[in-house]
Amino acid sequence: MIKLDFSKGKGLLPAIVQDINSGNVLMLAYINMASWEMTLETGEAHYWSRSRQELWHKGGTSGHVQKIREIFIDCDNDTVLFKVEQVGGAACHTGYETCFHKKVDGKGNFTIVGKKLFDPEKVYKK
Amino acid sequence: MIKLDFSKGKGLLPAIVQDINSGNVLMLAYINMASWEMTLETGEAHYWSRSRQELWHKGGTSGHVQKIREIFIDCDNDTVLFKVEQVGGAACHTGYETCFHKKVDGKGNFTIVGKKLFDPEKVYKK
Repeated sequence: MIKLDFSKGKGLLPAIVQDINSGNVLMLAYINMASWEMTLETGEAHYWSRSRQELWHKGGTSGHVQKIREIFIDCDNDTVLFKVEQVGGAACHTGYETCFHKKVDGKGNFTIVGKKLFDPEKVYKK
Repeated sequence: MIKLDFSKGKGLLPAIVQDINSGNVLMLAYINMASWEMTLETGEAHYWSRSRQELWHKGGTSGHVQKIREIFIDCDNDTVLFKVEQVGGAACHTGYETCFHKKVDGKGNFTIVGKKLFDPEKVYKK
């Protein structure tokens, strides 16, 4: 059994999430030991929400779960890579496919790229 | 000018590095404001080494620099994505293309995937 190194992030480590079909990097979130174990057990991505300070089943509210297809660990055992099937096609709570939808130019300014796949107000009923 | 949020990581935030040609996720490292500015200025990836506690020009020793091709920022401005051309073809100090060369199975065990592209002992002359 692989032993992840949670020590550097005080019990948390970063999880990079990549769409297994498009290869696009969808998001980065954090996991603790409990979310790691839930992810392995259920086959759906679970994180630790730093803002809400609670276990976070991604897609639990929106239905846009991430089905784990492959998991990789880095050389230092302190970062994981989840290759997922993104149900609904969009990982970002803003409605975009990927959280990385702000493209930076050489001067440090950005433009929005990609398109919204859902309306957050409808999905989250806020 | 985009304003990155360095506050959650006490002055550091994670940078995901993706090969612009293969789409493979190569590594995750951390940046502070100085390394962010150096990256924009030089067009080559600079990080903050948490282990050495110093500015780190990736490839400065090995010659395996990362030429920045595209930069994306996430929805919260607290993670960046560098799409790079990896000189030498390997990003990992172990000699593998990617740091994510340990593939985890359903039981939490792993196997090494990919092949070594260089011999670290020769490159780093240790």
